[in-house]
Amino acid sequence: MRYISFTRADGSASYGRLDGETVYDLGVEGAPVDLKAALAAGVLEGLSDGPALALADVKLLPLVPNPDKILCVGLNYATHVAETGREQKEHPAIFTRYADSLIADGDAMVRPPESVRFDYEGELAIVIGKKGRRIAPENAWDHVAGYSVINDGSIRDWQRHNIQFTPGKTWPATGPFGPALVTKDEVADLASQRVQTRVNGELVQDQPISDQIWDIPTVIAYCSTFTDLNPGDVIATGTPGGVGDKRKPPLYLKAGDVVEVSVGVIGKLSNPVIDEA
Amino acid sequence: MRYISFTRADGSASYGRLDGETVYDLGVEGAPVDLKAALAAGVLEGLSDGPALALADVKLLPLVPNPDKILCVGLNYATHVAETGREQKEHPAIFTRYADSLIADGDAMVRPPESVRFDYEGELAIVIGKKGRRIAPENAWDHVAGYSVINDGSIRDWQRHNIQFTPGKTWPATGPFGPALVTKDEVADLASQRVQTRVNGELVQDQPISDQIWDIPTVIAYCSTFTDLNPGDVIATGTPGGVGDKRKPPLYLKAGDVVEVSVGVIGKLSNPVIDEA
Repeated sequence: MRYISFTRADGSASYGRLDGETVYDLGVEGAPVDLKAALAAGVLEGLSDGPALALADVKLLPLVPNPDKILCVGLNYATHVAETGREQKEHPAIFTRYADSLIADGDAMVRPPESVRFDYEGELAIVIGKKGRRIAPENAWDHVAGYSVINDGSIRDWQRHNIQFTPGKTWPATGPFGPALVTKDEVADLASQRVQTRVNGELVQDQPISDQIWDIPTVIAYCSTFTDLNPGDVIATGTPGGVGDKRKPPLYLKAGDVVEVSVGVIGKLSNPVIDEA
Repeated sequence: MRYISFTRADGSASYGRLDGETVYDLGVEGAPVDLKAALAAGVLEGLSDGPALALADVKLLPLVPNPDKILCVGLNYATHVAETGREQKEHPAIFTRYADSLIADGDAMVRPPESVRFDYEGELAIVIGKKGRRIAPENAWDHVAGYSVINDGSIRDWQRHNIQFTPGKTWPATGPFGPALVTKDEVADLASQRVQTRVNGELVQDQPISDQIWDIPTVIAYCSTFTDLNPGDVIATGTPGGVGDKRKPPLYLKAGDVVEVSVGVIGKLSNPVIDEA
């Protein structure tokens, strides 16, 4: 199954099941109010299809518009560790992003006037479906509602102001997330799905999930040791080598660019870049 | 004025105005549901006193139990920069903590079995009262609802797993926050208030706010550049030198210890330490 969050033609927010070009509206009276609530109630996959809408008639929202936690794994591909010149450690680097930095597939990524080093990071995203703490790796998949795609758009100048990444990682309208939540059964071979990023059509990142240093069960076990994971929480599982900041010459995002991030059958984000007005 | 969040004897959550040993319950019918909502509505200081309760008859909650953002300033006192062996940069280090790591004055700080390096960090906390983005330093005070105290309890072993602090900075029951929100007019001379931390009575941190490298208007301007600040958001403004991890010999928190953090007239947190059951 594939699920999306969206606004209807009348501007009201909802969520639904996506089937080709048709969206079955699930946010009907008596149903949980949004995708996060449906995950928290443990009912998402059991909800009856509501009214059929044309995908073209809805406006996508960030897949989960209101996650409580967005945990980002840094340095999870050897190619990216190498290009940053950093040492590979025994444990992943984890930082955070706020929900108000997320945008939908198709929305404009906004470069603020404070930055001349706006960058992409294509990543596989995991959406948590079941609450847990100290989740054992062998149980981790039980806590995964499904997969999606995230572009961990980064303001490199501010990310490097000091030793913590937060000031570069959560600017408004820098985090495309979606388009859909893809349930695990839809992806027969996760390991072979490739994270691919294109800027104006040029392939700039391209690695399979199997290249991740810390696999998904390991990341879930690690993160859930230091904090509760709750339904709707998002884990951005790290970006492959090829980020713009480390290319020679660097490739920074500018107004008029189009950034596409795909993760195999899981889906594709396509977002134009604009300068902040 | 001083405000607190608490649970009543019947277990229901509320917030109120503190006057000596009396709490005037503000969470009455028709009023905003909690302290954050009262700040967001801009009505906190205009609410009429509700029923009088004895402070001894309520259970304190974390001052704001549900902030959307808790931004923590790292390396904001030269003594702490020096003891960590780090370089002082042009901009502050900012990392985050989640609301579900907060506890109230008096609650037990919990050392998890994963850690042998549990540490205190006494800090002045700022609570945001008015939403803003790119707040100019000269307007920053208009966005401050008041002051409080936070102990940015840290699991140093996990904080140092890799280059980002998050895995050591947001464990459940590690962040005492309160006891009260103290409005700006109550503190005639903020700069001279001293951040003091005591472990079992021994003074281990002791510096005035005037020693901060980046003052509060600068921190608010900086943080609000990369993310919106909203009512109820919290900024932990950094810890002075003297953290346990850098003492010789180190001083780690263990079951049975009592940690006190005070910031002059703003208030004092006192929390026992227990091992996780």
